[in-house]
Amino acid sequence: MNIVLLGSGNVATHLAIALKAVGENIVQVFSPNLEHAKQLAAKLNTQAINNLAEINNQADLYIISVKDDAIAEVVNGLSNVDGLVVHTSGTTDIKVISSVLNKAGVFYPLQTFSKAKELNFNNIPLCIESTDAEQFEKLKVLAHKLSNKVYELDGEKRKVLHLAAVFACNFTNHLYSMANELLVKNDLDFDIIRPLIAETANKVLIDLPANVQTGPAVRNDESTMNKHLSMLADLPELQEIYETLSNSIKLVHK
Amino acid sequence: MNIVLLGSGNVATHLAIALKAVGENIVQVFSPNLEHAKQLAAKLNTQAINNLAEINNQADLYIISVKDDAIAEVVNGLSNVDGLVVHTSGTTDIKVISSVLNKAGVFYPLQTFSKAKELNFNNIPLCIESTDAEQFEKLKVLAHKLSNKVYELDGEKRKVLHLAAVFACNFTNHLYSMANELLVKNDLDFDIIRPLIAETANKVLIDLPANVQTGPAVRNDESTMNKHLSMLADLPELQEIYETLSNSIKLVHK
Repeated sequence: MNIVLLGSGNVATHLAIALKAVGENIVQVFSPNLEHAKQLAAKLNTQAINNLAEINNQADLYIISVKDDAIAEVVNGLSNVDGLVVHTSGTTDIKVISSVLNKAGVFYPLQTFSKAKELNFNNIPLCIESTDAEQFEKLKVLAHKLSNKVYELDGEKRKVLHLAAVFACNFTNHLYSMANELLVKNDLDFDIIRPLIAETANKVLIDLPANVQTGPAVRNDESTMNKHLSMLADLPELQEIYETLSNSIKLVHK
Repeated sequence: MNIVLLGSGNVATHLAIALKAVGENIVQVFSPNLEHAKQLAAKLNTQAINNLAEINNQADLYIISVKDDAIAEVVNGLSNVDGLVVHTSGTTDIKVISSVLNKAGVFYPLQTFSKAKELNFNNIPLCIESTDAEQFEKLKVLAHKLSNKVYELDGEKRKVLHLAAVFACNFTNHLYSMANELLVKNDLDFDIIRPLIAETANKVLIDLPANVQTGPAVRNDESTMNKHLSMLADLPELQEIYETLSNSIKLVHK
């Protein structure tokens, strides 16, 4: 497939490298910032552009991987293309594309990407959707080349998944951060808690989280919870997080 | 070392198996519930008792691994022993032992234990403390036989660590649970989000969590956050968790 990539951030970069690795042909990289486009294009040995008027309109697939609120503007710049146009957003409706173009789709990789860390796409769930049945089949073939975990999800389910991911990833990471704040304040290194973080995640890879909940809240151990709240007396936000989550655990497991 | 184990729960079980594996001699298992004591004693090929009057008072080490609020009562039953007596609690002061016995200590494994899941003790941080310098050296040798990660921590630091563990493990697991609740309500399987959970943990094994925070709150993406809050309109507790954690992320990363 000849593919034009629109975007140069974390998702665009990881996706482009994975696509090239399975033999797809990235014919152009677009970014409003030409330097960013050039950086990624250099990795892919392809052309960098920063003007949508220069877009190659003969490609099979256009992947828009930019910030959610910038997708509509990029779509408007693709009025002359005939190939399938997809975005990679968890929260954006397919209509942002299909209201303008006939061949619209979504190609949402459910993963947290960092610039520095390489990822094996085989294990990344890819959530796909299209308004065009024929194009959908092509998208499905491409997704299966990249990953063993391909999910055909409509927009409503995709949005729920994205919200669930905020709880399981973004909020979880912030709790790690708050744990680190407590450790650092007391001259303890984050390293001491890393094996616990790894095992906490490992447990739910083979069980459901409600089955393996531990800690003072699920035991209704008021004495320990009160000690913890008083230790947090000078950190009111951590106290609020502690109370909110403990109350929720108690309610779910009562 | 000849060791008496007082307790038969998750921590006691995992610890006993690890101690036996490195060649220590578990001479007795005590539990107020004789059946529980027998179950664990059978695994260790040792004696089960449910009466503290029958305790072997010639052992080198007594490990109390019972619920926090039951430790004091067990300590009172050990007035005739001469060996070192330790508890395995993150939150309990060493004084609960040292106020009664001369050779007091703490042996706190910082990990989340499940009955079903085997664990490699090599990677489990062991936090140790003692009121007796000579006994402390013995405890240190034992800890290093079990684990590569031995930390000498006083009670105040140990309590902070336990509190940090509530954030990094117990609360994190509850967020996984809430993600699952959202998925199940929408006929989505928890399996779809497991690779994200694994990667979220993996990232902080090599970086600090504040450096890898992602999601709408850290981007200050009010539009997505408002959409998410309205999706949670009929789940007020999840809405409260969403708001509390998003506000905290915004505050930390502003």
